[in-house]
Amino acid sequence: RLVLHTGQGTRDHPPAQVALRDRLLRAVVSCFKRHGAAAIDTPVMELRETLMGKYGEDTKLIYELQDQGGELLALRYDLTVPFARYLAMNKVTNMKRYHVAKVYRRDNPATTRGRYREFYQCDFDIAGQFDPMIPDAECLKIVHEILTELQLGDFVIKVNDRRILNGVFAICGVPESKFITACSTVDKLDKVPWEEVRSEMVGEKGLSPEAADRIGEYVQLHGGLDLIEQLLQDPKLSQNKLAKEGLGDMKLLFEYLTLFGITGKISFDLSLARGLDYYTGVIFEAVLLQQQNEHVDELLGVGSVAGGGRYDGLVGMFDPKGRKVPCVGVSIGIERIFSILEQRLVASGEKLRTTETQVLVATPQKRLLAARLKLISELWDAGIKAEMLYKKDPKLLKQLQYCEDTGIPLAAIVGEQELADGVVKLRDVSTREEVRM
Amino acid sequence: RLVLHTGQGTRDHPPAQVALRDRLLRAVVSCFKRHGAAAIDTPVMELRETLMGKYGEDTKLIYELQDQGGELLALRYDLTVPFARYLAMNKVTNMKRYHVAKVYRRDNPATTRGRYREFYQCDFDIAGQFDPMIPDAECLKIVHEILTELQLGDFVIKVNDRRILNGVFAICGVPESKFITACSTVDKLDKVPWEEVRSEMVGEKGLSPEAADRIGEYVQLHGGLDLIEQLLQDPKLSQNKLAKEGLGDMKLLFEYLTLFGITGKISFDLSLARGLDYYTGVIFEAVLLQQQNEHVDELLGVGSVAGGGRYDGLVGMFDPKGRKVPCVGVSIGIERIFSILEQRLVASGEKLRTTETQVLVATPQKRLLAARLKLISELWDAGIKAEMLYKKDPKLLKQLQYCEDTGIPLAAIVGEQELADGVVKLRDVSTREEVRM
Repeated sequence: RLVLHTGQGTRDHPPAQVALRDRLLRAVVSCFKRHGAAAIDTPVMELRETLMGKYGEDTKLIYELQDQGGELLALRYDLTVPFARYLAMNKVTNMKRYHVAKVYRRDNPATTRGRYREFYQCDFDIAGQFDPMIPDAECLKIVHEILTELQLGDFVIKVNDRRILNGVFAICGVPESKFITACSTVDKLDKVPWEEVRSEMVGEKGLSPEAADRIGEYVQLHGGLDLIEQLLQDPKLSQNKLAKEGLGDMKLLFEYLTLFGITGKISFDLSLARGLDYYTGVIFEAVLLQQQNEHVDELLGVGSVAGGGRYDGLVGMFDPKGRKVPCVGVSIGIERIFSILEQRLVASGEKLRTTETQVLVATPQKRLLAARLKLISELWDAGIKAEMLYKKDPKLLKQLQYCEDTGIPLAAIVGEQELADGVVKLRDVSTREEVRM
Repeated sequence: RLVLHTGQGTRDHPPAQVALRDRLLRAVVSCFKRHGAAAIDTPVMELRETLMGKYGEDTKLIYELQDQGGELLALRYDLTVPFARYLAMNKVTNMKRYHVAKVYRRDNPATTRGRYREFYQCDFDIAGQFDPMIPDAECLKIVHEILTELQLGDFVIKVNDRRILNGVFAICGVPESKFITACSTVDKLDKVPWEEVRSEMVGEKGLSPEAADRIGEYVQLHGGLDLIEQLLQDPKLSQNKLAKEGLGDMKLLFEYLTLFGITGKISFDLSLARGLDYYTGVIFEAVLLQQQNEHVDELLGVGSVAGGGRYDGLVGMFDPKGRKVPCVGVSIGIERIFSILEQRLVASGEKLRTTETQVLVATPQKRLLAARLKLISELWDAGIKAEMLYKKDPKLLKQLQYCEDTGIPLAAIVGEQELADGVVKLRDVSTREEVRM
């Protein structure tokens, strides 16, 4: 007999989970629509070569399809690269789009922490040549709106800029060829202390101890507008062209975020690096903060719930003439948020309805199937959500029990008397009140 | 440079298509919910062995993933087999569920006729041991409701029963080992004339000419209750146990469909066979009928827009102890319906909005970016769908042009005067009326 399970790191969603997830997705999508985004859809499988060389070390996590003759295909790893491919292929230079869909990564699943090999991403991106930092600020506003609306507890949105990071590396004596690898080491600072990051830099990555120490002085800084001003005055950093550009834009970003009234949740954090290769400017990541009343372990496991940044070079990688389309976008980590809300729902003991049925069509005596079929058909045709038991002669008690089990609020009862009188008895399942109509 | 396209038989959906598709999916899902179904979700990839041996000749169309270490996976071919696997794995014996998701087939794409290698299926299924034909009748009611609501034009739902077909084969002298292959030949009767089907039976499938001729007498029959009665009187067919059961249930089905008031669109058609192996009882298929005013070719290409049937043995194939869970279900051919609606939309010249933005925040003079950012932030926080151009100083004409291009009905204008007065000028884009508020 065959083994009966789903693939490693994937799972079924029973109705209660789908109901919760749909509620979550609706909230996210309604925010994306509030910001004027249109939806696109792209295939789950892309040409293998479309995905190669876009994800750095993580390229090995891509699921490839078997060569069954024809093209070599792979499952999409994220929604950003397919979006860039879409823009280049259709020569779109200007678009605000959202895309909610599943992506695939042959990662080591950590299912207790909401990490799976098949999972939803909810992406919002703005493509086009615009004035600096206006779309970037809107992405942060979106993260702020969604996390506030979902009432996940206190959060902070860390912001940095790849140009500032690269500037720091440059003035600390890191050769340009090591910028990306240094970035991925710095990115670990949210999980491990500086000493460990430092020893990885010196050991594995081969930076000099002096360079590592100088980097350490910068990447442990975080703050707001004051820190930006301070770094703009920094004698070495302000001499670096990229860093200066990045800092200038960061200042502008904070100006816009002040007008949006959300700087209270924003932290300019030089340790934020983000793993992916394709970022070129602003990067950001939203993190839930520890709640005092909850279990430390559970929340520590969740951490980042949204992230994104600017990737001005990606579309150009697909364009035959290398034409660039600047982009900035955000991805909401819906699976992690789902894990939190699910834990919370379980803890609260609240039961989510999985159907929307308004009325059960029931009969109290035998041989009334025809009456039930006739009535339910009329209800359906009138757009009313109605069910009946698929038995010829079910007991009334069983029918009312079904209402209670599944949360159906009303029962429409047709018995011999009601049939004779040409009426229906409508019963409120919880109060047991009845009216004939 | 890399090749810039999507995989063969797959496609991107730009915003206008997603908007139309979402409208269609909403109508289908709302019908499923009206009938009390809950949603489940299963992974896109299943274990390879879960899918093998379920689809007859079509097994070769399954997309397999590369062996990258670990389990052998394949992309789902339909939503029915994963549903059966879900029921068996979770020991669910009773469930009414819907599932709207993409499935994958390495078929020869006929994209002009709406046939793709990646496409949506919309499935509704009822699992459980119930009294005969009540869930089956509901599946037909659902097809009737959806096709009526979508206004696709006249249609007919063909109904047959695998037991009746097998009974016909048996009394015509076909050996039981050839029932399935005979089925798939009969199934072609909607596309080719009887003579061709007959010669395939005798030639490729090795039936005797006499058997083929006798089959031909039956499978060219179609009608209603009268035909059922006639076959119940048929001296040979009524002697066959399976056929008799099937005909008895067909009669019961027509009784229920009469109560639903939908027999006008139902045809008991002995030529209907359906390709898949797993059907065990009632089978059905909805076909759009030729419209006189439209292009013959286009509509002929579309044909079947929904189908389904009873599969009482499939769950048992997954259960370690072979326990059966009877199931009946329907799948709506959303991609074909989409093709029709899209052609119709193009023909009508109607333009579907791809965003829902209610108001554009605009400024008539320079240096008013701050005012725009402040106002739009207030609108977003109040739940209003608002956009602005991502330029520091856009021309008012450009801003109003954007409204007209994208169908935004209102513009909220803040100029120097409005700022001084503490008001906003609200402009109706189409009538050009303005109010200060």
